[in-house]
Amino acid sequence: MAQEHAAFSRSEYDRRIVKTRAAMQAAGLDVIFVTDPSNQAWLTGYDGWSFYVHQGVILGLEGDPIWWGRYMDSVGANRTCWMGPDQIHGYADNFVQSTERHPMQDLAGHMRALGYESARIGVEMDNYYYSAKAHAVLVQDLPQAQIFDATALVNWQRLIKSEDEISFIRKAARITEKVIATALDKAAPGVKKNELVAEIFHAGITGVDDIWGDYPAIVPLTPSGLDATAAHLTWDGAPMRDGEATFFELSGCYRRYHAPLCRTIYLGTPPQEMLNAEQAQLEGIAAGLDAARAGNRTCDIADAFIGTLKKHGIHREGRCGYPIGLSYPPDWGERTASIRSEDRTVLEPGMVFHFMPALWMENWGLETTETILITENGAAEALCNVDRKLFVKN
Amino acid sequence: MAQEHAAFSRSEYDRRIVKTRAAMQAAGLDVIFVTDPSNQAWLTGYDGWSFYVHQGVILGLEGDPIWWGRYMDSVGANRTCWMGPDQIHGYADNFVQSTERHPMQDLAGHMRALGYESARIGVEMDNYYYSAKAHAVLVQDLPQAQIFDATALVNWQRLIKSEDEISFIRKAARITEKVIATALDKAAPGVKKNELVAEIFHAGITGVDDIWGDYPAIVPLTPSGLDATAAHLTWDGAPMRDGEATFFELSGCYRRYHAPLCRTIYLGTPPQEMLNAEQAQLEGIAAGLDAARAGNRTCDIADAFIGTLKKHGIHREGRCGYPIGLSYPPDWGERTASIRSEDRTVLEPGMVFHFMPALWMENWGLETTETILITENGAAEALCNVDRKLFVKN
Repeated sequence: MAQEHAAFSRSEYDRRIVKTRAAMQAAGLDVIFVTDPSNQAWLTGYDGWSFYVHQGVILGLEGDPIWWGRYMDSVGANRTCWMGPDQIHGYADNFVQSTERHPMQDLAGHMRALGYESARIGVEMDNYYYSAKAHAVLVQDLPQAQIFDATALVNWQRLIKSEDEISFIRKAARITEKVIATALDKAAPGVKKNELVAEIFHAGITGVDDIWGDYPAIVPLTPSGLDATAAHLTWDGAPMRDGEATFFELSGCYRRYHAPLCRTIYLGTPPQEMLNAEQAQLEGIAAGLDAARAGNRTCDIADAFIGTLKKHGIHREGRCGYPIGLSYPPDWGERTASIRSEDRTVLEPGMVFHFMPALWMENWGLETTETILITENGAAEALCNVDRKLFVKN
Repeated sequence: MAQEHAAFSRSEYDRRIVKTRAAMQAAGLDVIFVTDPSNQAWLTGYDGWSFYVHQGVILGLEGDPIWWGRYMDSVGANRTCWMGPDQIHGYADNFVQSTERHPMQDLAGHMRALGYESARIGVEMDNYYYSAKAHAVLVQDLPQAQIFDATALVNWQRLIKSEDEISFIRKAARITEKVIATALDKAAPGVKKNELVAEIFHAGITGVDDIWGDYPAIVPLTPSGLDATAAHLTWDGAPMRDGEATFFELSGCYRRYHAPLCRTIYLGTPPQEMLNAEQAQLEGIAAGLDAARAGNRTCDIADAFIGTLKKHGIHREGRCGYPIGLSYPPDWGERTASIRSEDRTVLEPGMVFHFMPALWMENWGLETTETILITENGAAEALCNVDRKLFVKN
């Protein structure tokens, strides 16, 4: 069954593993235990909604990686990973949510059997799905091992995308264009927000032609009015109203790859301060895209954007972007570089970011963003083809 | 803004806090730090898609709880929590995904300011969203505190539902009936699985009358054929085929409350062994429901089901159910009691379980399940009104 469902060629997975092992060696690690579902999928192809139980990938310096998880899910691992069944290990169901047994005891047994009893082991200390308890049990059950924090070690290897990955993100971008167009088209006074979100889901999952829609790692964010001053509120059943701005933060998803985009719509006549902010934001985005060139740094994008806003008298702090690609809930960000003034990651061709120059003001929010690809020459390419402006419907 | 968006009355939140504090006192805790998003919402009403950053609720033995999280999300907390703005604390954005600063340093500062520097503090060691790193930073920054594992302490208080909660679950059940009916109606040879899932999402989010659909904590699981031998694979763009069983594991969701249900459909003429298994499963479910009475134990349900299967020559291991109610991704289970032979939780009126007597065989899967309410008298009530059988479409 190996390779039947895996999304990429064997040579693509080999490339990833070679790159990851170089990072492991640079960090002095013999083996890593990878819990981030995106990292698991990136290394092995594993794809299942099972990240609410303890599971992960064991990658040493030689041989194929091992997928380890609940027995029930090892069946799915055999369907989706590129490795053969010898590299898939399932633990018994009585480890699940037990107060007497912990799955990490089973993992520790495997690590000993694999010869890692006294190894230098990297774990993803600050990744969700690697709980404090999981770590405590592993440390206790491998007393001779040295366990190090390898948070984001694999994530950093994902920063520059392969041609195959970029083609997946471009497909996701086609779906993004469709869901944004659907949201803008259906939005109107009196339309219940949940009914609008239902249309967005339908458009995204049906996809475009043979580009079938996968589930995005974040549900549609579509807040209106005062709710749009907060970044991450989800919908309810209230109708949309005249005199309110609504932002749409949406992404198409193709085989777990994303291309997020935000646009804002105003129902009625926008206040002048919002139109002024729109102009400042659009100028800032253009300045940011122009700074998003190979050889520049992530901070250059942020500084170009924030500097432009400042000229218009708007003070903006915080992150304005992050790398994206393969992801699972609850986040489509890759959790490595940030587009912000204190981050000095050098931009290279093949990096893909969600450039997120949103404005959350006291009484309204204005989100206009782009998924951008750093190219060989020139400014970044915006991967979605959607008018960049505040949309207005009277 | 307090109480504007919160789902329940103040007296319902008071009831929950009184109950939780009794459990804290029994465990000898002065304060708990609650990271499980479901527990946060249950105590405070907080509702936002922000659980991918560090956040939580601080609950001491007196006073209102405190919601703590990213500044950007404190705006959403002010919109959704029942407490006033003095009880909402936001940390600066440069703590987010930083290698120099960790949000738990900010939390430790708050804990000291609140007088918990030397307190007995409970944390949810084995809950996702409480990472190994978060724990390590908290322990380091509160050297005089005693930090205990309070995993599931709040979850256990959620086990018996209030009347208000049951009414939310009944509303979710109306949506579940609709999504299951939609899936069964649209399934046919040649229908692309993602297009079927798009219809399911659309039906679930539009909801039923004024019962608007929220996002379920698990995406629709709809695997066919060999993929249905695995429990948690998601969809792709392949067409449904004659001669295959497909199971639907779906839930409606109303204001974060769930009522999961599974049904299986066979396109074509099912093999005799599947029909035999269906009979055994239906008998087993009836036996399980009859055993699901106040005063009995969770193991009695499992034993009744597994014993019936055994009579039919089918060997089944593992969990066959869990409590449900309020939840956020990645799981709609409450992570306390389990319906399994080794679990001896005494059943009480108001408990709600997803009774999950699924069969995953070597070449196919057969899922027929019920969301059940333990009642004052008699057998459990199945909350969804859906024919209980293997559906067949020729």
